[in-house]
Amino acid sequence: VARKIVEIDLSGHGIRVEECPEDLRLLGGRGLTSTSIQRETDPLCHPLAPENLLVIAPGLLAGTGLSSANRLSAGAKSPLTGGIKEANSGGTAAFKLARLGIAALKFRGAAPRGRCLGLRVSREGCRLEDLGFLAGKGIYQTAEALRERFGARVGLIIAGPAGEMRMSTACLSVTDPEGEPCRNLGRGGLGAVAGAKGLKAVIIDDEGAEFRPHDPEATKALIRDFAARLKAHPVTGEKFPKYGTAMTLMNVNKLGGLPTRNFSAGSFEGAEGLSGDRLYETISSRGGQYAHGCMPGCVIRCSNKYVDPAGKAVVGSLDFETIGLLGANLGLGDLDQVAELNKLCNDIGVDTMETGAALGVLAEGGLFAFGDFPRVRDLIQEIGQGTPLGRLIGSGAAACGRAYGLDRVPTVKGQSMAAYDPRAIKGLGLTYALSPMGADHTAGNAITLAVDPTDPRVQLEAVRELHWKYTALDTLGICIFTGRVSLANPELIEQAVRVITGWAASWAELLELGKRILHRERDFNRRAGFTAAHDRLPGFMLREALPPNHEVFDVPQADLDSFYDFDREGQLD
Amino acid sequence: VARKIVEIDLSGHGIRVEECPEDLRLLGGRGLTSTSIQRETDPLCHPLAPENLLVIAPGLLAGTGLSSANRLSAGAKSPLTGGIKEANSGGTAAFKLARLGIAALKFRGAAPRGRCLGLRVSREGCRLEDLGFLAGKGIYQTAEALRERFGARVGLIIAGPAGEMRMSTACLSVTDPEGEPCRNLGRGGLGAVAGAKGLKAVIIDDEGAEFRPHDPEATKALIRDFAARLKAHPVTGEKFPKYGTAMTLMNVNKLGGLPTRNFSAGSFEGAEGLSGDRLYETISSRGGQYAHGCMPGCVIRCSNKYVDPAGKAVVGSLDFETIGLLGANLGLGDLDQVAELNKLCNDIGVDTMETGAALGVLAEGGLFAFGDFPRVRDLIQEIGQGTPLGRLIGSGAAACGRAYGLDRVPTVKGQSMAAYDPRAIKGLGLTYALSPMGADHTAGNAITLAVDPTDPRVQLEAVRELHWKYTALDTLGICIFTGRVSLANPELIEQAVRVITGWAASWAELLELGKRILHRERDFNRRAGFTAAHDRLPGFMLREALPPNHEVFDVPQADLDSFYDFDREGQLD
Repeated sequence: VARKIVEIDLSGHGIRVEECPEDLRLLGGRGLTSTSIQRETDPLCHPLAPENLLVIAPGLLAGTGLSSANRLSAGAKSPLTGGIKEANSGGTAAFKLARLGIAALKFRGAAPRGRCLGLRVSREGCRLEDLGFLAGKGIYQTAEALRERFGARVGLIIAGPAGEMRMSTACLSVTDPEGEPCRNLGRGGLGAVAGAKGLKAVIIDDEGAEFRPHDPEATKALIRDFAARLKAHPVTGEKFPKYGTAMTLMNVNKLGGLPTRNFSAGSFEGAEGLSGDRLYETISSRGGQYAHGCMPGCVIRCSNKYVDPAGKAVVGSLDFETIGLLGANLGLGDLDQVAELNKLCNDIGVDTMETGAALGVLAEGGLFAFGDFPRVRDLIQEIGQGTPLGRLIGSGAAACGRAYGLDRVPTVKGQSMAAYDPRAIKGLGLTYALSPMGADHTAGNAITLAVDPTDPRVQLEAVRELHWKYTALDTLGICIFTGRVSLANPELIEQAVRVITGWAASWAELLELGKRILHRERDFNRRAGFTAAHDRLPGFMLREALPPNHEVFDVPQADLDSFYDFDREGQLD
Repeated sequence: VARKIVEIDLSGHGIRVEECPEDLRLLGGRGLTSTSIQRETDPLCHPLAPENLLVIAPGLLAGTGLSSANRLSAGAKSPLTGGIKEANSGGTAAFKLARLGIAALKFRGAAPRGRCLGLRVSREGCRLEDLGFLAGKGIYQTAEALRERFGARVGLIIAGPAGEMRMSTACLSVTDPEGEPCRNLGRGGLGAVAGAKGLKAVIIDDEGAEFRPHDPEATKALIRDFAARLKAHPVTGEKFPKYGTAMTLMNVNKLGGLPTRNFSAGSFEGAEGLSGDRLYETISSRGGQYAHGCMPGCVIRCSNKYVDPAGKAVVGSLDFETIGLLGANLGLGDLDQVAELNKLCNDIGVDTMETGAALGVLAEGGLFAFGDFPRVRDLIQEIGQGTPLGRLIGSGAAACGRAYGLDRVPTVKGQSMAAYDPRAIKGLGLTYALSPMGADHTAGNAITLAVDPTDPRVQLEAVRELHWKYTALDTLGICIFTGRVSLANPELIEQAVRVITGWAASWAELLELGKRILHRERDFNRRAGFTAAHDRLPGFMLREALPPNHEVFDVPQADLDSFYDFDREGQLD
């Protein structure tokens, strides 16, 4: 299957389309963004300087109706961490880009300050559009205006006001099948990289395009088989559609690992009010939508459309990490409140997780009281207004910790943790410490492992393998939520690669690929100045026992240092 | 000469006094602070955590009337850079500590949050004092209250409100011979380390104490000889006393290296109004004091007491770096305005240089217009008030650059540059890039070198040697402004060491010591996670030509990387 790479120079040097080079032919998603960055970006460049390369790439398998296999990756040198960044999301953009035969969009340079540009991608090719009329506009309004101008069925990738203001926590938003801009490339400030380039949106019109898998008949059969297996599994077939990602909340709370009031406790007295059960009851009784699919073809459908008591839409997909960090971590126990905050963050275009962590730090610093919902709402609005305080919050948890002189700041490599306290779930501490992305749960979510989460000693191998597996999935564009079926039956993954791309890769080879991509990411970070000293959790988690289970993070330092022993296995390619 | 080390555990575990260990016997000042930190501080600790060690040490030669040889060092892991930090200052504290036989004060642990403690040091020993009544008070008021309570002649080291709020730019202030708290241990946030420990002040009462040099008669003779030589030199005997450090301003402006409007130009149309000539005329015509000595015995007397048009005291010592960064860098050309800002910063207890650089970044970010004095004054007041914006400014230039999404931020290792643009004065670029302290001009002020400052290729050896020399001087406690006499006649330094301490060290041995101390500092930084990637100037200085001479920083990268080749010369001790 021939794929194209589109090079867009926003400094005014035009657009160039070329065939995907032979050595990148079998890379998609994270594999393609990270490899491009590792090879082409000066690791010492400023993330907001024109030299930084922004790469957007659908997963290798995107473009068909295969369930949960249409994820989109974006990558750059991160304004938040200073290291390499890949973030991925659902939505329709990857599906549509793949149907247009596009393996990657690579943005270089920067438009003159003040310009506000869009890239329109269609069968006729790629064209830059002046979007000056949308400068400073919220993401929801921008999406509506773009659908009006370019057609209701376009897929969109949008930077919000936070991205235009080049804030380190700015995300990129991707539209879902209904056109709601709520699937976020959330972490690491990729919205700021777009903003620094003057890129407000990518508009993808796949009208008339078609994706031809290597073996169309076998692909159809696999789509059916994979969907059936996902539906038959109790988690992917029943719990995810009903409770969404929030299904995990009471479990994490029970383990004593739910970040509460800036990670000062691991269980929250208001957890019931934030639970998957409560989410399901609320949505279903009000006529909202659960079992919503964020990507074309997805049968897991963990997404939802949260509505207010009158049944009016609030936000598309209230999810666990947001509930944890904008809820329990701020002492808020009401889903209506969290949904409103989520919508605000989405509209401004900031990562809900980093925002929740930053606000938790500020509450600890005395700026406001935990549980003060109106104040939290005002503070998030300040981000969008670009007030000095808003800009501080938009700089992330580490910056807030610095400003308020605190050493209790839940970040690694400058990025905040997700809604799992690593003192209670040690494997996640390994992932937070060791992912090249900073404290990123999706790099290897160890809560899925069948191990005692409080045992510090047995998880190294398992977590390491998880990182390889997830990196492979991120490269193929397969959602990690398929893991209970796909990782349990890797022959399904081999089959998908074969029938869609024609590549007869074994699962072992795909895992090797995952390792190689981690190598490259780590190589970039090394040249950007990262060392083992950065592969550490914040000190307070090593000495401060977490209530109620009084755990500290006690994974031996030697385990952290040996995690990347596979670096030495071979030469970097 | 027997010297004592005082260990103060602020967590409530008391005070311990011990003889200075044999292997530290010949270390003072920076040599003692950096060696202690390198050996005892976990490089991965949070700078505001109780584990961080704060060391205060007079220079090895302090305690006599030898001109310019009574400097005080303080050191810790820096809240601003995350690396090792030593800052040094004049004032009377080093002289008095040395007379009390104290080689170092080492502060560990932290008092419970909210406590405000003082350490009183006298012939009767060391005692912690409750200074709760001074919590949150400005440095001037604190100094006055402490002199009232403990005697008019005590020497003081004080943390201001910024330090108590644990801001990364908080300094420690040292009183001068008149008791004015205006000699700052300015850089790197040492005030925040004190604040995090609950330490508001050190009160040094040397009543009845006496310092006995190894050879009292020879010391007297040397004091006379050294003073005479300093007075006889046209720079140290005439220009420094008359014009102060501002004597260099017009020269730097002429070289096109005076930071103007956030380092966007290298000469300032208002430079005349900030010049050494203007400073001298202003002070002398108003009845202020020039030729003021900041330390006991100093004959260079580069310090001054700036007064308002009515002859009323404004601030003790208006100096070049402050004038450059709070003046030209903010588009302000009026010494009265700069003096008022300087006094404000001193009272709040923040580094004037980092504050000027941070405000320059914020002006570039659009928060206010360059040249708007009332707004600048208000913003500095906000630091003292601890408003969110004040806390952002108090976090330093790098934090402000992040919040406002800028890549034109004049910092290295998170610390702002001094008032020399390294594009015009390349040797200072080497010093900024390569000092373990961040962009610190006092690590090796290359403007003193007899080389073409715009030639990128010839300065490596000279600057390297300067770093060794300055590190040796910082260890001995000798002011670098003596360089034209002391470094030109190193036998004077050998003689001073011999007659005061009894140690027959050659100048070559003292340079070796300087190298060894740099080794140790660099070793700490390496373990804290610093690599060659951090020994770099910000990218904009490599590509953006600086008006009026259109220079970029073009020192070859290989030169930067070979600067520390001497690391490999021997094993670290």
